[in-house]
Amino acid sequence: MTNIRDLAKMAGVSVTTVSRVLNNHPYVSEEKKNAVLKAVKATRYHKNINAVHLSKGKTKLIGVVLPFTDHPYFALLLKGIAKQALEYNHKLLLFQTDYMESRETEALQMLQQKQIDGLIICSRACSMRKIEEYLPFGPIALCECVKGGEISSTYIDHYKIFMDALEFLYRKGHTKIGYCIGRKSGTNSRNRDKAYWDFHEKYHLPHHPEYIFDQCYDYEDGERVLSRVKEMDPPPSALLVTSDQVAAGIVISCNKQQISIPDELAIIGFDNEPIAGMLNITTIDIPLVEMGRNLVHQVLTKEIKNKEISATLIERGTV
Amino acid sequence: MTNIRDLAKMAGVSVTTVSRVLNNHPYVSEEKKNAVLKAVKATRYHKNINAVHLSKGKTKLIGVVLPFTDHPYFALLLKGIAKQALEYNHKLLLFQTDYMESRETEALQMLQQKQIDGLIICSRACSMRKIEEYLPFGPIALCECVKGGEISSTYIDHYKIFMDALEFLYRKGHTKIGYCIGRKSGTNSRNRDKAYWDFHEKYHLPHHPEYIFDQCYDYEDGERVLSRVKEMDPPPSALLVTSDQVAAGIVISCNKQQISIPDELAIIGFDNEPIAGMLNITTIDIPLVEMGRNLVHQVLTKEIKNKEISATLIERGTV
Repeated sequence: MTNIRDLAKMAGVSVTTVSRVLNNHPYVSEEKKNAVLKAVKATRYHKNINAVHLSKGKTKLIGVVLPFTDHPYFALLLKGIAKQALEYNHKLLLFQTDYMESRETEALQMLQQKQIDGLIICSRACSMRKIEEYLPFGPIALCECVKGGEISSTYIDHYKIFMDALEFLYRKGHTKIGYCIGRKSGTNSRNRDKAYWDFHEKYHLPHHPEYIFDQCYDYEDGERVLSRVKEMDPPPSALLVTSDQVAAGIVISCNKQQISIPDELAIIGFDNEPIAGMLNITTIDIPLVEMGRNLVHQVLTKEIKNKEISATLIERGTV
Repeated sequence: MTNIRDLAKMAGVSVTTVSRVLNNHPYVSEEKKNAVLKAVKATRYHKNINAVHLSKGKTKLIGVVLPFTDHPYFALLLKGIAKQALEYNHKLLLFQTDYMESRETEALQMLQQKQIDGLIICSRACSMRKIEEYLPFGPIALCECVKGGEISSTYIDHYKIFMDALEFLYRKGHTKIGYCIGRKSGTNSRNRDKAYWDFHEKYHLPHHPEYIFDQCYDYEDGERVLSRVKEMDPPPSALLVTSDQVAAGIVISCNKQQISIPDELAIIGFDNEPIAGMLNITTIDIPLVEMGRNLVHQVLTKEIKNKEISATLIERGTV
């Protein structure tokens, strides 16, 4: 690879002159400038941007940690992140973790090693303590409520939203309510679970741990949930389903099996995806694109804030 | 920022010794090693990986150009790319182009500037000629058939698949066939359109350019297509729909309006997404995850090959 010293030698000028020409600085004679440009052309020389990063300490890259990209929740979040990053003229470096801590650690290490200017963690596997260790190396933003400390976050209050949805179902006469979730172990999932049990305490409702279905990500999971519901005695009369795709799977399966919605089973989905509109599913609208945009804003402006994004219940035909 | 020279000074050793310690080379005395490690600790020194890239000329990054990430076709392709990149221990740098040539050019320039080791273009806006100009700077792989030249590609033969599906519909008695597509201008779209008109020539069928619906990406577009079909006289009796999401939108709208499928309108979707299974939609299975994996393989092994991935018609209930 040709470097700046080779160019200087070829052009018969100093390294400083080559640098001035390459960076469009003034005070270079036309003659020397032309000699340098001739050498550049002859050697097909191109600035190595890693060298530029090295001198400026900026990569214009934002790291994004997310478990997978092929799920609408993360795809929409990523859409917002990508839109805002583009407006700030930054690119995205993607870490698909599949919830493996080792892959998340790699992202944190790249922040430490200055390969990215900041990091957005959409859903974390590492402990907060571990993430905080990497804060000295660059800004980090999370998608969960982080009060105090130096981490920014844009979040929705999953406890409140879950509780509101449960109260809504209770007012409609439901007391046997279940819920479907992706993984049980995340912070957001734990908050939802807490709301679920607090709600049961509040109204002195009988406990049915079997009404909780985890590993629900896609249409087929909705089919599986319904087949389990059908075997229960008593079955839940309503389900809070934390993904519209899973809700769509349940609704389509109910239609196939002539199970009447909402009379036999009421459904509330999450995210207000287009499929929920098509199938007339009552859902909770979470402005994921707006969340994504705000995360980028937080990382690049380095303003340490907790921003809550509010959600809205969209009443349609499944409750 | 502390650099390797500062460390050498602090530890009272040569720069070479510091470099040897940092890179775990042998032949360094315990005494000198400890002095260096002490300096590293005191200064919180971390290798600047951009400096490492500079010396090794490798970033372990693969650029991925795609119009958007929140569409199942590209999401599944990206899933395959991400899986394979992980196996090769490479990260992804994402360029969401929205089909804007300027954004695609940025990706090509980053290849030129050694910020990425290779580039995968899932759907291009730039001309082939322009892309070829950047080949000297690193490997590029495309998702379309590129015979000859130095560009690798993994592709499906859209002409053949479209023709096979049209013949399938013809054998089922359909002569008034329409199709739905995202954008009209891409290479794949042009090949599909050619198959469509060649099929009409072959069987001397009347031309109905109004049976071609573009800008079809999502459920709502399916709703829009159906409302236009209903106003036509004569309407098409079958539609080839190049996205299962759009096909699902058409099927759900037909159900709502008591339009009988396949008797009044036959549908063939594309991609064999889960929703197609749920709604019993006949579709064409395209192994997108496998395609994504192969693109990464091509970029990293630098083997210049054209690999065709075959598609399969999955017969269900909509034809």
